[in-house]
Amino acid sequence: MDNILLVLTYIAVSASAISGALEARKHEMDIVGATTIAFVTAFGGGTMRDLFLGRTPIFWVTDPFLSVVTFVLALISFYWLDLPSSQWLNVPDAIGLGIFSVLGASYAMQIGASAIVTVLMGVITGAFGGVLRDLLCNQMPNLFRQKTELYATCSFIGTWIFVLCTWGKVNSVIAFILGAGTIFLMRLYAIRFKVTLPAP
Amino acid sequence: MDNILLVLTYIAVSASAISGALEARKHEMDIVGATTIAFVTAFGGGTMRDLFLGRTPIFWVTDPFLSVVTFVLALISFYWLDLPSSQWLNVPDAIGLGIFSVLGASYAMQIGASAIVTVLMGVITGAFGGVLRDLLCNQMPNLFRQKTELYATCSFIGTWIFVLCTWGKVNSVIAFILGAGTIFLMRLYAIRFKVTLPAP
Amino acid sequence: MDNILLVLTYIAVSASAISGALEARKHEMDIVGATTIAFVTAFGGGTMRDLFLGRTPIFWVTDPFLSVVTFVLALISFYWLDLPSSQWLNVPDAIGLGIFSVLGASYAMQIGASAIVTVLMGVITGAFGGVLRDLLCNQMPNLFRQKTELYATCSFIGTWIFVLCTWGKVNSVIAFILGAGTIFLMRLYAIRFKVTLPAP
Repeated sequence: MDNILLVLTYIAVSASAISGALEARKHEMDIVGATTIAFVTAFGGGTMRDLFLGRTPIFWVTDPFLSVVTFVLALISFYWLDLPSSQWLNVPDAIGLGIFSVLGASYAMQIGASAIVTVLMGVITGAFGGVLRDLLCNQMPNLFRQKTELYATCSFIGTWIFVLCTWGKVNSVIAFILGAGTIFLMRLYAIRFKVTLPAP
Repeated sequence: MDNILLVLTYIAVSASAISGALEARKHEMDIVGATTIAFVTAFGGGTMRDLFLGRTPIFWVTDPFLSVVTFVLALISFYWLDLPSSQWLNVPDAIGLGIFSVLGASYAMQIGASAIVTVLMGVITGAFGGVLRDLLCNQMPNLFRQKTELYATCSFIGTWIFVLCTWGKVNSVIAFILGAGTIFLMRLYAIRFKVTLPAP
Repeated sequence: MDNILLVLTYIAVSASAISGALEARKHEMDIVGATTIAFVTAFGGGTMRDLFLGRTPIFWVTDPFLSVVTFVLALISFYWLDLPSSQWLNVPDAIGLGIFSVLGASYAMQIGASAIVTVLMGVITGAFGGVLRDLLCNQMPNLFRQKTELYATCSFIGTWIFVLCTWGKVNSVIAFILGAGTIFLMRLYAIRFKVTLPAP
């Protein structure tokens, strides 16, 4: 199980790094911008979570390999990658949304946070790297737009499932899979059928 | 006294949450944006203060009720609230500016910070949630504009009064009231008579 | 050596504070904006580093004199300074880039961070105050633009030199001078000959 999680983590981080670097290219940034946007997209949410929970030094300071992978992938993507469509990144991105949300929630639980804060930490971990990326690209966060397909909402619902399972003494591996799986499938469903939140 | 402070805190947080949600609606965000902007407006300043001072886990991680109130108010405001004018929020917002500034300053004092840093922490706590809100809305912070009525300045002066009172061994409740009261009244005065800072 | 470093630190902080205040004036901000931009330009990078490494309370909370200098310089620059050209700030800015990068890297080393993270902390400390400044001014970070002369890159290369020297048991003062000196000279060279990174 731990090995699967590790592989999925690197798949998700890679997807974030690549999408970040491509986004930077779109905004006519140089490689400094591209590596920064890649890092922020991949690690921004987890960084906020670690800071809020007081888990310092934060996670990517203690795991150098994450930085190396992100750095190298950003470099390659920026100079040489030619994706026919960014749709290819939807699946690995949804994997990341799923596992990072539930992982973030589990860290909040570890310090005894309440359910609402646990869920918020899950959503921040999974979805807010993209908010920081958009800030650095000087545009309104895509996550907040009315026409964006459900993203934070999938994370919100999936982490609630994870929290409720944990309360119900469900085995922690099963709780993780149920939570992260719901997020993953719900996100792909939302993209496929263009599901958005109701406007006011 | 503690009960009054608690009531005032919730009044102020509510005002921030509502104004944040309405601001999000103005920028055509969805409810994810609205709740985020509400949180950032209400808790952004205090979050920065806690991070800078090393007070982690930060305050809203340890108090779930604040999050619940903000979340619910943002939801209601975003979908159903129809304020004839945002002027109605000026008074509760000024209450928040007053009490959060002095509260933030008192936390800095607790760790033995110098006067200048104490005052800066007061101003950050009271006034910088709005800066983060404006960043997320992709606009130049209103706090920094030349035509904005005194806001951070009220906080700056009131926290200095609080610091000086504390140095002069004034009773802490009275010091709090003098500081927060000055900020509150000065802010309302500045709005009423459109007092701004001199341009260069 | 310590005294020289102290003098250079204040020269660099002063340059950041002045350039921040002038930038604020260009964006028609008031003095609240000017002091904030000055602080963010001067202390933003080091603040991020301290937060990521868990060094709290962060450095400018514990050293009030830095805040006083920044505050006073921002005030004077904003209202009265009339620089014929911002070129005058290039040399002190390059001094700051050099010493803050290597200083930031040395803090990361102290907590046993890996080489890649050490270098990243150096670059963040030296170069990312400007990124936060640009965010607050609501523009795409200059650091990321393709036409910007090498900036983060100088910091990146100089901190690698510092790291390699330290690995090679070079005397720490000499390692510092080699790292910071390289950054300083490389930055001035890049400005003089308009050296930029290759576009994709």
